[in-house]
Amino acid sequence: MCLKSTKRGPDSKVNSLTNNRDISGVLKDGGSVIPGSLEAFHKLQNSGLPVKLVTNETQETKRSLALNLSSLGYDVNERDILPPCPAVVKLLKEQGLRPHLLVHPNVLGEFQELDQSNPNCVVIGDASDYFTYKNLDTAFKTLINMPKPRLFTLGRGRYYRDQSGLLVLDVGVFTAALEYAADVKAEVIGKPQPDFFHSAILEMGIKPEEVVMVGDDVVSDIGGAQSCGLKGVLVRT
Amino acid sequence: MCLKSTKRGPDSKVNSLTNNRDISGVLKDGGSVIPGSLEAFHKLQNSGLPVKLVTNETQETKRSLALNLSSLGYDVNERDILPPCPAVVKLLKEQGLRPHLLVHPNVLGEFQELDQSNPNCVVIGDASDYFTYKNLDTAFKTLINMPKPRLFTLGRGRYYRDQSGLLVLDVGVFTAALEYAADVKAEVIGKPQPDFFHSAILEMGIKPEEVVMVGDDVVSDIGGAQSCGLKGVLVRT
Repeated sequence: MCLKSTKRGPDSKVNSLTNNRDISGVLKDGGSVIPGSLEAFHKLQNSGLPVKLVTNETQETKRSLALNLSSLGYDVNERDILPPCPAVVKLLKEQGLRPHLLVHPNVLGEFQELDQSNPNCVVIGDASDYFTYKNLDTAFKTLINMPKPRLFTLGRGRYYRDQSGLLVLDVGVFTAALEYAADVKAEVIGKPQPDFFHSAILEMGIKPEEVVMVGDDVVSDIGGAQSCGLKGVLVRT
Repeated sequence: MCLKSTKRGPDSKVNSLTNNRDISGVLKDGGSVIPGSLEAFHKLQNSGLPVKLVTNETQETKRSLALNLSSLGYDVNERDILPPCPAVVKLLKEQGLRPHLLVHPNVLGEFQELDQSNPNCVVIGDASDYFTYKNLDTAFKTLINMPKPRLFTLGRGRYYRDQSGLLVLDVGVFTAALEYAADVKAEVIGKPQPDFFHSAILEMGIKPEEVVMVGDDVVSDIGGAQSCGLKGVLVRT
């Protein structure tokens, strides 16, 4: 992990957003800590600077992510983890939308407060093994039966490294599939969407130019951050 | 089904290519004959004009397609059915390619003469329920481990009407997914690829301008045929 100050000198403020599927790739790689990351993260925390973990992770809840990181030695409060599910729930509520969900069963509970009858949008997250032909086909049928189809995706990632260290397909691949099938353009909730970065900055209560985004994806992490006025630091994994 | 002559007058020659996923949509719709199609097809056959069925069907062999049509009242010889599997087998043999197959188990036998060890290309057909996350992920891993990834797809269709009459996802959707995942452009074997139409015309032993293509897909059927100098006739289903 690499950090830079946006204001140099003794009073400089360094704030960091980092990320999971990006937590994977920045703090850990598959099921292992990335050498040096644990020490860098502790150093950052001990400096008293605010840190948020901005992630496109949609297979786990904030709680299970925090537990997972804790088992690797990271001391992370779940309120400092910002995945897309709460953001999409907020947006759907604001717009009065009723989702058909194609998400991992682990995160279904996060949507329980929403009316899911007679859906007027589809939400796709990283469903992994639940990306079956039948589930994709049902999402497709739901979309084409809407007068005005809306598809929300919780990321555009092509692949990520799983617990065993292998590259595996990510949600962006199945988003591309549904976009092609139903001839619709998905709306991204997650990185690199500017609103997603802005909501994280809002929680930190500081200015964009005072924040450093550390990530391993040049488009979602660094490009997304830079378009919001943040500094981006790319780490290679 | 609608037919037109490319040369008018008493000596006019009308030849027809029609199609399945297009056979579905032209001769039948789901599991039922399209009203008028059976009579039109018989009339065409009785006129003595050559007819070929050019299809992107990759869930069934030529034999099972012929049997299926026969059960609906069509008298079709399997040698007059031209699906993409034999065409891709021919191409792979010519180019010394060893495929990793993501196809329906029904057509696996068509590839048995090919060496499939240490694959240097991926072939994707309409695998339907066999488009699992695991199978797509394996195809992805196979592609990204190639020095020069090659992906062949047996069509670009978004959806088709199944036996129960419902629209369901077609191979093009999963092709789009793999293209996005592995950042590769698929090569189409099937309609609207010109070589596919040309091989059908070659079998008929006549000139392109003497052939009429009847189909229900304006891009794959009509656009593809017209780009080869054939007349295209669009039917609406």
